[in-house]
Amino acid sequence: MGSPRQVFYISDRTGLTAENIGEALLNQFGNVAFKRHTHPFVDTPDKAREVVEKVNRSRQENGQRPIAFVSVVNDEIREIIKQADAFHINFFETFLGLLEKELNTEAVAATQGHHSIGNTQRYDARMEAVNFSLNHDDGVSDKNLQEADVILMGVSRSGKTPTCLYLALQYGIRAANYPLIPDDLESTDLPRMVKPYRDKLFGLTIQPERLQAIRQERRPNSAYARIDTCRSEVADAQNMFRRHGIPFANTTDKSVEELAVHILQACKLKRRF
Amino acid sequence: MGSPRQVFYISDRTGLTAENIGEALLNQFGNVAFKRHTHPFVDTPDKAREVVEKVNRSRQENGQRPIAFVSVVNDEIREIIKQADAFHINFFETFLGLLEKELNTEAVAATQGHHSIGNTQRYDARMEAVNFSLNHDDGVSDKNLQEADVILMGVSRSGKTPTCLYLALQYGIRAANYPLIPDDLESTDLPRMVKPYRDKLFGLTIQPERLQAIRQERRPNSAYARIDTCRSEVADAQNMFRRHGIPFANTTDKSVEELAVHILQACKLKRRF
Repeated sequence: MGSPRQVFYISDRTGLTAENIGEALLNQFGNVAFKRHTHPFVDTPDKAREVVEKVNRSRQENGQRPIAFVSVVNDEIREIIKQADAFHINFFETFLGLLEKELNTEAVAATQGHHSIGNTQRYDARMEAVNFSLNHDDGVSDKNLQEADVILMGVSRSGKTPTCLYLALQYGIRAANYPLIPDDLESTDLPRMVKPYRDKLFGLTIQPERLQAIRQERRPNSAYARIDTCRSEVADAQNMFRRHGIPFANTTDKSVEELAVHILQACKLKRRF
Repeated sequence: MGSPRQVFYISDRTGLTAENIGEALLNQFGNVAFKRHTHPFVDTPDKAREVVEKVNRSRQENGQRPIAFVSVVNDEIREIIKQADAFHINFFETFLGLLEKELNTEAVAATQGHHSIGNTQRYDARMEAVNFSLNHDDGVSDKNLQEADVILMGVSRSGKTPTCLYLALQYGIRAANYPLIPDDLESTDLPRMVKPYRDKLFGLTIQPERLQAIRQERRPNSAYARIDTCRSEVADAQNMFRRHGIPFANTTDKSVEELAVHILQACKLKRRF
C-alpha cells in the first residue's frame, strides 16, 4: 500500500466543519491509508505561510501530493493557502461563487466565524441548558421539570446522560433524564415523577448484551450486571414505552449525534438557537 | 426583501455536516432571508421521494427555486433527490469524483455512516470520558486525577463545566475541572489538589463584566456577583496562570467548540478516537 497519503485540514476557525466533511469523504476510500494533520485558527498571513511550508515539506518528504481540505473564510488567508503544493479541496470557495450567482448578490465577508458566539444569547442558552441537564441528571430533582424540553427515560446505563448533555451543548435543549429503577418497572403506570409530563417523554432502550457489558465494567459480578437482570429490565422498559405510547430509540448502534437528531425529530423539538 | 428563500438540508444520516457547512455559507449572505427545513435520515427511496415532493411544493408556493444542501452517501437515494426542482449543492458528490481521480482508486460505498459507532470502542471512550468529567466536576474529587487528560481551572462561572463536557463528548478526552475559590487566589502557590498535575492544567479566564452578569443571574445582589469581586478574582486567577506558566484562554468571546480546539492545541492533546 506504500506510505500513507498526507491529509491537511486547514481552517481560520476551528476546522471542525472541514474535518467532518473531510472524514466522511476519506471514509469512502477504505483501501487508502491516510495520515492527518490539523491546523485550526490559521488566521494571520504568517500562520498561513507557516502552514504552506509544512505542506510543501510534506510533499517533498513523501513524494506524493498531500490532500488539503481547506475551510478559510478570510480572502487574504485563502490566497496564501492556495499556493501550497497540494491537491486542494476548498469547501468554502467552491460553493460560495455558485451561491452568489444563484442568489444574485455578492457575499459579504462575515466578521465573525459561524462558531463564534457573536450574540451571547446563543452561548447563554447552551450554558443554561447544560446546567439544567446537570441539575436534572438521574432523576435527582423534579424541581422545574415543567421547564424541561424533553425527559429521557431508560434503565440504568442505557445512555441517558451523554445524550442529554449533547442535546444541551449542541442545541441548547433542556434535557432532563429519569432512570427506570426496578420499582418503576414492576408497575403498569408511569413513574409518579414524570407522569405529569407524558408529552415530553422519550425512551432509550439498549441491547441486553451490550447493557450487560457496560454494567459488568461498572459493578463486576453484581446482580445488577447479570444478563437475565438486563434482559428483564430492558423488556419491562420497552413494554412501558409501548403501553403509554412513548417514542423510543435503541442506543446500541447509534452515536450520540444520531440519537440527538432522532429525538429532535420524534419530539418535534426546536433547537433554541 | 421579499419572501425568504427556502433552504433544505437533506441527508441520509444526521445531516449535521451539511448543516454546518451550509450555515457557514449562508452566513456570508447577511442581506438574504432564509427559511430552513431539515430532513435527516432520508435513507429509503420512499422517504427520498417524499422529500422531493416537499421541495417541489415549496418551489411552486414560493415561486423561487429552493436551495438544497445535500449530503447523501447512498447512490440510489442521491439519484432520487437530484430530481427535486432546486438549486443543488451536493457536498458529497462534488468532491468524491475529484478525490477518486486524485487517489486513482474508486470510492467504496461505506456501509456505516461516519457518525455511526460501528466500533463500540469509540462510543465507550466517549461514555467513559463523560462519566469521568461528571465525577470530576467542580473539584469534587481528586480521586484518579492522575487519569485526567486535562484539568481546567478558573473562577466560579468561568465556563469550565460545558467545556469539559464538550471535550469529553466530542473527543473522548477526560477533562476534570477545578474551581478557584478565594482561598486559592490569595495564595501564591498552586492549589494543593492540582499541584501534582501542573502539566495538565489549563486556565479559563473571562471578562469581569460578563462574569458579573452570569453571577448576578445566579445569585442576585450577592457579594459573589459584585463587579469588584469579579474583577479581583479574575485578576488573581490570571496572575496565578502567568506565575506558574499555565496556558489559558478567555472564554468571553469563544464558543465551546473554539475553546475545545484551543485547549487541544495548547495542551497537545490527542483525541482518544
